[in-house]
Amino acid sequence: MPEIRARPYAYAFEPATTALVVIDMQRDFIERGGFGEALGNEVGRLAAIVPTVRALLEWARARAIRVVHTREGHRKDLADCPPAKRRRGQPRLRIGDAGPMGRILVDGEPGNEIVPELGPPAGETVILKPGKGAFYATALDDILKAQRITHLLLAGVTTEVCVQTTMREANDRGYECLLVEDATESYFPEFKQATLAMVHAQGGIVGWTAPLAAVQASLP
Amino acid sequence: MPEIRARPYAYAFEPATTALVVIDMQRDFIERGGFGEALGNEVGRLAAIVPTVRALLEWARARAIRVVHTREGHRKDLADCPPAKRRRGQPRLRIGDAGPMGRILVDGEPGNEIVPELGPPAGETVILKPGKGAFYATALDDILKAQRITHLLLAGVTTEVCVQTTMREANDRGYECLLVEDATESYFPEFKQATLAMVHAQGGIVGWTAPLAAVQASLP
Repeated sequence: MPEIRARPYAYAFEPATTALVVIDMQRDFIERGGFGEALGNEVGRLAAIVPTVRALLEWARARAIRVVHTREGHRKDLADCPPAKRRRGQPRLRIGDAGPMGRILVDGEPGNEIVPELGPPAGETVILKPGKGAFYATALDDILKAQRITHLLLAGVTTEVCVQTTMREANDRGYECLLVEDATESYFPEFKQATLAMVHAQGGIVGWTAPLAAVQASLP
Repeated sequence: MPEIRARPYAYAFEPATTALVVIDMQRDFIERGGFGEALGNEVGRLAAIVPTVRALLEWARARAIRVVHTREGHRKDLADCPPAKRRRGQPRLRIGDAGPMGRILVDGEPGNEIVPELGPPAGETVILKPGKGAFYATALDDILKAQRITHLLLAGVTTEVCVQTTMREANDRGYECLLVEDATESYFPEFKQATLAMVHAQGGIVGWTAPLAAVQASLP
């Protein structure tokens, strides 16, 4: 069985029962002129990991490891957007408003698309998620269990928000999760580092972390 | 409407639609000789917040704010314990094993009881939860929605594990959440501080935080 040199200890997995889950690599969070930048965030930090996420995807695709992408977005009528989410932070631009890349966080709008460098090609599953966690109000758990997936490799943005929330949900559901350290990023570098530390603390209470190079070395 | 002076901005709530959720203040995590200490953690940090949590409970009880307690624990047959959870960290004592206060993290065992200083009295809801998040595989969301609860005050242990996971689940479900800063604690003080910062960052992306004194001052 392949093993990844990881923190806090080696992570063993079978490719046939492992999925790569790439969280929210969508234009509005990553590209200049999008929602993320409109909120005052430095999106360059997130854009910088696109090549690493792409290398991770290419590694997985070439080894027939299943790939799932997520997008945070809402139905056009916003029926799946809690009023509390729309109000929060009293932003200048709210979910559903017209933004620089179409309506903010709405399915089908240009800003809600995954960045073109990462695909996704036909055959890869895309989950539209209304929450930060990809398991809430989606079919993700059913889809993974139908494919007998037990192990998840996680990547994407932002580390302490949607990635961490999804990893914690997955861990509660019994998945063995590894977060790829250089294939995830936050607008706040100190939050990324704290999240990695929280994940592998206490014997891996949420799971494992390892850099892309260690993932690649486990199954050349 | 009462308002709590909170970070990142004032938190308004109606007592009738607000619940206080106290996470996992159970003997095994908090008392000397329990599971937490057996794993090498310094439980004194957690025990130190018991009077603050008690003062928060007394404030809520006297104002007819509903109270929910959670306990992390499993059925006696461990049917609700994922194998991954039992294996994780290769511990000396596993969930279900005989520990210093009965079987580890099993419902009905002495170590799984809430510390006696906090009750709970008859009439307060206790949720047995198999995960870190209190919404996963429990009736918590149904119970809160049946009572028309929209706002949650959170307290308990540990901040970055069960409290944070539950708060993130609640936020995705549309609850307006405030974490009481001095009524939560972690075995790792730096993780507590990072979690508080992550919660109220970006305009309160997960919710609000405030000390007990600010909660009490909002509704004397």
